[in-house]
Amino acid sequence: MARERVGILGLGLIGGSLALALSGRRGAPEVWGCDRRREHVRQALAAGAIARGCAAQELAECDVVVVCVPVLRSVEAIRALGPRMRPGGILTDAGSAKAAVVREGERAVAKGAFFVGGHPIAGTERSGFHAADGALFAGRTFIVTPTRNTDEAAVRRVQRIWKLAGSGALLRMDPRTHDRVFAYVSHLPHVVAYALVHSVATLRTPVPLGYSAGGFRDFTRIASSNPEMWKDVVLQNRAEVLRAIAHYRRNLRLLERRIARGDVPGLLGYFRRAKKTRDGLQTP
Amino acid sequence: MARERVGILGLGLIGGSLALALSGRRGAPEVWGCDRRREHVRQALAAGAIARGCAAQELAECDVVVVCVPVLRSVEAIRALGPRMRPGGILTDAGSAKAAVVREGERAVAKGAFFVGGHPIAGTERSGFHAADGALFAGRTFIVTPTRNTDEAAVRRVQRIWKLAGSGALLRMDPRTHDRVFAYVSHLPHVVAYALVHSVATLRTPVPLGYSAGGFRDFTRIASSNPEMWKDVVLQNRAEVLRAIAHYRRNLRLLERRIARGDVPGLLGYFRRAKKTRDGLQTP
Repeated sequence: MARERVGILGLGLIGGSLALALSGRRGAPEVWGCDRRREHVRQALAAGAIARGCAAQELAECDVVVVCVPVLRSVEAIRALGPRMRPGGILTDAGSAKAAVVREGERAVAKGAFFVGGHPIAGTERSGFHAADGALFAGRTFIVTPTRNTDEAAVRRVQRIWKLAGSGALLRMDPRTHDRVFAYVSHLPHVVAYALVHSVATLRTPVPLGYSAGGFRDFTRIASSNPEMWKDVVLQNRAEVLRAIAHYRRNLRLLERRIARGDVPGLLGYFRRAKKTRDGLQTP
Repeated sequence: MARERVGILGLGLIGGSLALALSGRRGAPEVWGCDRRREHVRQALAAGAIARGCAAQELAECDVVVVCVPVLRSVEAIRALGPRMRPGGILTDAGSAKAAVVREGERAVAKGAFFVGGHPIAGTERSGFHAADGALFAGRTFIVTPTRNTDEAAVRRVQRIWKLAGSGALLRMDPRTHDRVFAYVSHLPHVVAYALVHSVATLRTPVPLGYSAGGFRDFTRIASSNPEMWKDVVLQNRAEVLRAIAHYRRNLRLLERRIARGDVPGLLGYFRRAKKTRDGLQTP
């Protein structure tokens, strides 16, 4: 059997880190990379992260293609690449919203080829190949989102690639559950943090934020995330994100009313319930 | 001049840390401590943090008395201690909401004695003397909130004590500005984090939070803060906290609408404005 060939579309933070993580590993596949930003390809070649820079359509010659472009563009990329995939080829992605991508992927992929939705739980608030890091996925969870149509051997092959790249736990979720879970654990916190900083940014009399002793700064770190990427994420997972925001809004309103009424037992109960849930969180 | 004597009412996280920070410093005052929880006094004596445990009314024999009880009880404590203070004596506090406390303090204090509002910007989500730490204030900002009635020499004497305890920058704000600033940089973030965790805690179908890769966990750390203390803080600073929540709610609603409409330029503008503000934050 010839050496496996993995193609990566998009050599930004995620794709670039995946390429770096695979390059030079024992038993690692040959990695081809494609990015419409020329300097990303140049940097990836110079870093030895990819063996070859190629055009998007050439990626279809790879055994496995990992789409690592921003989520909104990934549907379009999958539609273009899917029909070109060779029999037995696997198309997968690394986006943080899955239902729409998986639906499109299964529809678009050539007969005999497979689509597998994937989501490596890693990232920083930085972006671009210069932020890529071969250790980004080390020990972090990788989630696959198979449906009843998904080929089991294809799932295992995708998991093997992420395991080679350093991933720790391998989890499975159906795409809708995935999107609901991430609306709460990731997308809603970003919305909440952005809204908090936006409030401060739009005050008529500015508040000197330097006084916050690191608290406000630490708490709002995620509001430093890439605006382009997060615009895409909330739109891609729009239905679940809106449901989570509406639910959050009701919880905030409840707290606001208890403060306004000076409801001491109500406030204590509210804060205690939240503290208990937060304290019960385990690192995965 | 006899050695200065500082009394501390409440030997929990803040009072206990202040006692530890002062004990054994060159030029440090003699420290008396009082706490209605007997074990706090025992622990403070055993740790050498205080020279003497005493009853609340005896504290009035000290040159400076620092009230470190939870904010809602501090008004009551100040009302009881204020009239007993000796001429030239200084009553001060360490609470995170100032307007009400300063008003009460100035009203309650004996003729010839002084009240000075104070706020050391330090703390953790833990509480009690066992969480106290002599390095808690090291390099952290201390804020005094004088009014036009406040004696300037008394302000300097209070600042000297916190400087001895390790404080870094010394700042001044009038009490109302202080409360407005802290509603935004501290109280609102806590409200927002509590509401976020409360949302997750009250989901009918629970969400497995372990998947959040540390993001949710880090972001909601402040929702692990002491519920009793935070119930007091939001009630003590109620007017400013409610104003900040209402303002935040409007900003959240704006973001929600832009997501619902799929308003790409609106979302980008919103996220960019927040990111710019967040990235511009300086450590004090």
